[in-house]
Amino acid sequence: MFESVDSTGVLAWAAPAAAVLGMAFAAYLAFWVLKQDPGNERMQKLSGLIQQGAKAFLFAEYRLLAIFAVIVAVILGVAINPFTALAYLTGGILSVAAGFIGMYVATRANTRTAHAAAGGIAPALKIAYRSGLTMGLVVASFGLLGISLWAIFFLITAQHPDPEIVNGFAMGASSIALFARVGGGIYTKAADVGADLVGKIEAGIPEDDPRNPGVIADNVGDNVGDVAGMGADLYESYVGSILAPMILAVAMAFMADSPMGYGLVNGSFVGFTLDGIVAAVMPLLFAAGGILASIIGLFAVNTSDPSKIAKALNRGTYLAAGIELTLIATLCFVWQSVGKLNAMWFFGSMVSGLIAGLAIGKITEYYTSYSHKPVKKIALASEAGAATNIIEGLSSGMLSTVAPTIILVCAVAVAYISGTQAGGGEFALQFGVYGISLSAIGMLSITAITVGVDAYGPVADNAGGIAEMAGLPHEVRENTDALDTVGNTTAAVAKGFAIASAGLTALALFVSFKTNLAAGMGEENLNFSIDNPYLIIGIFIGALLPFFFSAMTMGAVSRAANAMIIEIRRQFREIKGLLAGDPGVEPDTAACVRISTNAALREMLLPGIVAVSLPIIIGILDVNMLAGMLVGTMGSGFVMSIYMANTGGAWDNAKKYIETGMHGGKGSEAHKAAVVGDTVGDPFKDTSGPSINILIKVVAVVSLVFCPLFIRLGGGLLHLFLG
Amino acid sequence: MFESVDSTGVLAWAAPAAAVLGMAFAAYLAFWVLKQDPGNERMQKLSGLIQQGAKAFLFAEYRLLAIFAVIVAVILGVAINPFTALAYLTGGILSVAAGFIGMYVATRANTRTAHAAAGGIAPALKIAYRSGLTMGLVVASFGLLGISLWAIFFLITAQHPDPEIVNGFAMGASSIALFARVGGGIYTKAADVGADLVGKIEAGIPEDDPRNPGVIADNVGDNVGDVAGMGADLYESYVGSILAPMILAVAMAFMADSPMGYGLVNGSFVGFTLDGIVAAVMPLLFAAGGILASIIGLFAVNTSDPSKIAKALNRGTYLAAGIELTLIATLCFVWQSVGKLNAMWFFGSMVSGLIAGLAIGKITEYYTSYSHKPVKKIALASEAGAATNIIEGLSSGMLSTVAPTIILVCAVAVAYISGTQAGGGEFALQFGVYGISLSAIGMLSITAITVGVDAYGPVADNAGGIAEMAGLPHEVRENTDALDTVGNTTAAVAKGFAIASAGLTALALFVSFKTNLAAGMGEENLNFSIDNPYLIIGIFIGALLPFFFSAMTMGAVSRAANAMIIEIRRQFREIKGLLAGDPGVEPDTAACVRISTNAALREMLLPGIVAVSLPIIIGILDVNMLAGMLVGTMGSGFVMSIYMANTGGAWDNAKKYIETGMHGGKGSEAHKAAVVGDTVGDPFKDTSGPSINILIKVVAVVSLVFCPLFIRLGGGLLHLFLG
Repeated sequence: MFESVDSTGVLAWAAPAAAVLGMAFAAYLAFWVLKQDPGNERMQKLSGLIQQGAKAFLFAEYRLLAIFAVIVAVILGVAINPFTALAYLTGGILSVAAGFIGMYVATRANTRTAHAAAGGIAPALKIAYRSGLTMGLVVASFGLLGISLWAIFFLITAQHPDPEIVNGFAMGASSIALFARVGGGIYTKAADVGADLVGKIEAGIPEDDPRNPGVIADNVGDNVGDVAGMGADLYESYVGSILAPMILAVAMAFMADSPMGYGLVNGSFVGFTLDGIVAAVMPLLFAAGGILASIIGLFAVNTSDPSKIAKALNRGTYLAAGIELTLIATLCFVWQSVGKLNAMWFFGSMVSGLIAGLAIGKITEYYTSYSHKPVKKIALASEAGAATNIIEGLSSGMLSTVAPTIILVCAVAVAYISGTQAGGGEFALQFGVYGISLSAIGMLSITAITVGVDAYGPVADNAGGIAEMAGLPHEVRENTDALDTVGNTTAAVAKGFAIASAGLTALALFVSFKTNLAAGMGEENLNFSIDNPYLIIGIFIGALLPFFFSAMTMGAVSRAANAMIIEIRRQFREIKGLLAGDPGVEPDTAACVRISTNAALREMLLPGIVAVSLPIIIGILDVNMLAGMLVGTMGSGFVMSIYMANTGGAWDNAKKYIETGMHGGKGSEAHKAAVVGDTVGDPFKDTSGPSINILIKVVAVVSLVFCPLFIRLGGGLLHLFLG
Repeated sequence: MFESVDSTGVLAWAAPAAAVLGMAFAAYLAFWVLKQDPGNERMQKLSGLIQQGAKAFLFAEYRLLAIFAVIVAVILGVAINPFTALAYLTGGILSVAAGFIGMYVATRANTRTAHAAAGGIAPALKIAYRSGLTMGLVVASFGLLGISLWAIFFLITAQHPDPEIVNGFAMGASSIALFARVGGGIYTKAADVGADLVGKIEAGIPEDDPRNPGVIADNVGDNVGDVAGMGADLYESYVGSILAPMILAVAMAFMADSPMGYGLVNGSFVGFTLDGIVAAVMPLLFAAGGILASIIGLFAVNTSDPSKIAKALNRGTYLAAGIELTLIATLCFVWQSVGKLNAMWFFGSMVSGLIAGLAIGKITEYYTSYSHKPVKKIALASEAGAATNIIEGLSSGMLSTVAPTIILVCAVAVAYISGTQAGGGEFALQFGVYGISLSAIGMLSITAITVGVDAYGPVADNAGGIAEMAGLPHEVRENTDALDTVGNTTAAVAKGFAIASAGLTALALFVSFKTNLAAGMGEENLNFSIDNPYLIIGIFIGALLPFFFSAMTMGAVSRAANAMIIEIRRQFREIKGLLAGDPGVEPDTAACVRISTNAALREMLLPGIVAVSLPIIIGILDVNMLAGMLVGTMGSGFVMSIYMANTGGAWDNAKKYIETGMHGGKGSEAHKAAVVGDTVGDPFKDTSGPSINILIKVVAVVSLVFCPLFIRLGGGLLHLFLG
């Protein structure tokens, strides 16, 4: 029996193989992009400034993160396991590498897209999209490669599967993602808010005007925030979603009379059953299928009609989703045929996740696009001034959390019930939970193409900026604007998708945490009952955490934007001839880049360190309190994150709607009010909202990794003092 | 043994006695206020308009609530128990009566305060404060009278104590409070926002200018929102906090080998032990003591120095708190002497609650008063415009949730640990939880005087409005302004207190809910473990609820304010000579009163019905999911409520700070930006924030009352379909 199982485990090698294929294809796309014409000298110079700024920021960020990562690795090595520390470092390094590569290509694709836009929509779309997909494939391939290799060595082929070690990889991914998102988010919005408030409102010059010293920092921000930060975010969700079901499968294999394994005999692990090894390997295969599906989907994206860009992008995503669903169904069917479980039900779990993700994305679009009522109402409210614009926006944003939350809980229920149908019996709960964790994979398996669509946006945005700054003909800007507008909507949809997947991933990780604890210290030594006062205290602390986190990140943007405002005002005042546009007079863009860089690095530290250390501190006190905290953070964080992302997106588009000539159009009182909402929305949608998204996963992953420590402490030190 | 217990139960009659004393003293205060000189004819006319408006609104509201209450009573009578339905109606009627009496006195005290202000601070303060305390005493006395009579008949003296019935009284209090708060909050802010936006910003006329048609509605709003609404809110917290420990004591008496009672013999209740009857009676005695302490505290409030008003008010509160602490300590000491428990530890539980309440109030002051850094930073941020004012305000408001939450959880921990020291053994958890419920009483026992301080504010505010509209001399307005400014701060502190007490009360009610369920259907048939997927689904729904609720209430204010804006603009346009101030030309204030009234009644229905019915629906599906929902609402609601109340208060005072001449003073760009923040803050602090406060208690009380139904359904229908 054991031999046949071992040979089944060999299937896991399909995952690194798919990852290598993905990387090869990413390399092909990257070289293709870099081969394109980068445009005239002025454009190349502007693009060069953006490249330098982005590189300088990322390198400074990585230096800081390296120190942080080494400290954490030492703690992990001592408190948990040296291999966990090593896995942690690889998780972090691959995240950094993916972010850097994506940023490298994106900051070179911008000028090439601008140049190609002179020849129409189709060639420009092709460059921007291929640049985005490079990022998407790198993110997915690096994530899958890392997790599959660690899993093969320590989870699947080893005599004694050791989940702690693989969890370390996920924690590396998470903690780097948190800093990348928070730092990138602060960087991009400090530059954006500062440049807009002084340039557009005070000085009355257009967006991306070359006289504005903050414009380069703004364009750099698009890359470090929306490309590198967003990529790290989804890399982390992707890794977490693959990991959680594997952990659960392994944990079940340890249980007596489990259909997954032979449990512990004389304290040592005997082996998996066929169903057990398949359950542990399947998540890798589903993810591998997603990479193939994404590569095929790419070829469906092509159009020269500006009104059909969104359709073309969606066509690629839907094609990939369709292929992936077919692959998943096939894999489940094979599993059902060879094993003893009703494995086709797991397909139901995954479909529920995928449908929920797409549905939440659609609802995000409803609440944030100006084709629909909510944004139109915000635009209308702007007529009575900034206050009513803000009140209506906040109210609409809060309301927009209702449907996604209901969809999420329905998906959880369906995934759970489907799971219990696959296994059932006394293990019904475990199979149900395994189903929930699979639903996160259903959502995230096509991460490569969803990241691709998302990362395409900043390239189009940057291309527009370069076209404006380089003084390219009007029709070039029109083409890049068409690409950019679609990018905003797809970005909003992708954000909804990311939040939904974060909710499911965090939930799956939480259940893994609980399973590990119960296995390690005995269910009877835990008090996970919701009327345990310490657990309730944890829920309060958990519910608080997203608010604390948003306060920090919003405050950081506020402080950094203020420094930026002072600097831009100073330059307009002191550099003679700058505002008049005298030839040869150039703004000191490097000063603004420096302000954003320093602010982002300084301000990301405290929230990041709190997020990583709080679960450890609470867990050392009492694991039940930690369980409460995780669930509290999940609940309030999920809702808060949707609220902030949607409110910000809606304000942005209410302004754009007015700019199409409604309610008095550009320059009207309504427009001025809408600009206030848009500015408030900037940190909402691009700093705080997405950061919470990672927060809820980081606290879960850190808790999971530190389980062995909590177990060694007997479930926390609090009971030593209080009994 | 049983006889001695019965005679101990007689002590409970001290509660209705204290309530009657409180009512008598309230009557004395009311007649004293009404005896004062109401001022000249013009003032009496203005006051009359406010009285009519407030009466009209409250009567319309009560008509609607009567229909609602009868429907709910019928449901309760059928699904639970006819006595529960009757208790429900009395709880509601007493709430309505308290609100009406408070409003009746307050709307007559306003013109008397304005008139007395001509003679200095001291006489004006006396009238306003005595009017406030009338409300405070009525609220506390009605609450204590109702709950003590129902408790004496059905909880303490009956052979088979029947908590269901007493719970009905609390539910009546809660559901009326919810509508009163939401309706009153929408009313007052629709009028305030509308009158300010058109009057102050568009037409440039001062606040409370008699030409503004919205001003009467605004002043009516102060009474129906801040007097009647706030009173109903604290009435409900007060009732809930007294009820929860009584329920827990009775539930413990039913358990086998309990130190509280002899458990069930042959299915029928034998009786309480001495400790049991004392534990059930004590909450009533603590509350009775609080009424006496409040009456004594009143006499300490007297000053003629405008800079010492806050000190004088605080002196009264601190004196009352000191007396009450002494009484509580004495009662606990007596209990410890006669019973077998270490009852002095319960004093620790109550002190922790009281200290937490005062500390959270102080922190609220720190974040909302312009003597401190947070508000000054918001004022500074206003220099760069409305957007930075909003961002800084939101960020500061979110940050302001951290310390109160930490204080609350510390108070919970201390109260719990103290409780376990009082009892311990195998009942340690129950005694700890009893301790937590006592901490809410510690906070709320001096409700009479805290409501008094709070209800004094709107009277001073109204007095200022009447002084302005009646054209009284400048120094009168100066005196009323001095009283009003202090009222704003004390109101903010009281709001912090109310939120803190809501958190503890909801927690105590939740534990009672859980205890009742476990007693009714057996602990083993519940799955309250935090990894139960249905319970997690409940937590998500619970975390969502405050966001949905805020979306509804913010949206309602936005819609109603818009209607108000259109009407005021119309009057300024169509009524010739109105804006010019031609003699004899008067605005149509009744039209604005109508708009606010109708909007408030229409918009309060949906959120109110959702809040009352959602727990029933979820509980019918699955009680574990309901438990999750309650905790989710508690966690996210507590934080959200502090966030909204503090953000709104801070924006208000940032504007006032600028009006003292900072950052350019009135009329500067910074001031305009601060007005935007202030306007957004209006529904934050006076509609949505306080409504969430009640929401978290309503869902808990409704769940508690419907326990018998859920038990009859075997814990919910979901498991029938899913197994």
